[in-house]
Amino acid sequence: MMDEKARRAALRKIPYGVTVVTVRAGDRVNGFAGSWVSQCSFSPPMIMLGVKRAGLSYELLDQGRIFVLNVLGKDQAEIAEKFFHPVEYTDSQIAGLAYSRGVTGAPILKDAAAYVECEVERIFNIGGDHDVVVGRVVDAGFDRDEEPLTLANTGWQYGG
Amino acid sequence: MMDEKARRAALRKIPYGVTVVTVRAGDRVNGFAGSWVSQCSFSPPMIMLGVKRAGLSYELLDQGRIFVLNVLGKDQAEIAEKFFHPVEYTDSQIAGLAYSRGVTGAPILKDAAAYVECEVERIFNIGGDHDVVVGRVVDAGFDRDEEPLTLANTGWQYGG
Repeated sequence: MMDEKARRAALRKIPYGVTVVTVRAGDRVNGFAGSWVSQCSFSPPMIMLGVKRAGLSYELLDQGRIFVLNVLGKDQAEIAEKFFHPVEYTDSQIAGLAYSRGVTGAPILKDAAAYVECEVERIFNIGGDHDVVVGRVVDAGFDRDEEPLTLANTGWQYGG
Repeated sequence: MMDEKARRAALRKIPYGVTVVTVRAGDRVNGFAGSWVSQCSFSPPMIMLGVKRAGLSYELLDQGRIFVLNVLGKDQAEIAEKFFHPVEYTDSQIAGLAYSRGVTGAPILKDAAAYVECEVERIFNIGGDHDVVVGRVVDAGFDRDEEPLTLANTGWQYGG
């Protein structure tokens, strides 16, 4: 039998960032705090996300097929925190934060240190509680060189 | 046109660990330094890896369908460095480092701070230079509570 305590502890030793993944489908917008994020190809540049199957962001990702990975600076934990739950939005604000629209129309947080905008290439149901979403990078922006927010910075956990 | 410089800079802001992923197929053993690693399901616990399509480790992963994610402590960069290229191995050592065999037979580095042993569930060709390998956690061990080695610790880059 697997030692569940060791499993949780070992999995929690994988270092993660804390980003905000913003999504849009039609005129509906949402975002979530995303840690299960990694690049998965250089050429073409692609990233993979683990995204909870149930939930509004999953639904918008599946329908809209676009997302923006908003990279936060290490002092921006309070921005990520706003996206722990579905958020309110207007044409110019999401969760009370200003955003613009990227080339795909997906929302880009104005306060992000950097962003990577993607078109969804594939969504894989892996038989777990999250799907693996693979996106091809179609645009990116870099506002400022700052240490990125990490799970370790925040003391939050998402893993185990 | 996408700003390639911004794209590289933004992608490099995603925080990563540096782990050693060890693989085995039959009596062949190898390992590689892996950063594109993330959990992708809680229940059942699964992890996803971006693995370069060409290469011995990919071949062994594809054939053996097992791997171990060896989590290193922050002062163990020199261990990861040994796995930048294919390594020599015996029944008890890989790249000159002692290993044991996990429940699947995959090698576990004795010096790892923690490890997660997986059976390969799926290998997805995503049309890039890496495949997405999804593994189901079948065993794990936790040796000591140590800050994990990160790409930021080492100053190496794998992303952009």
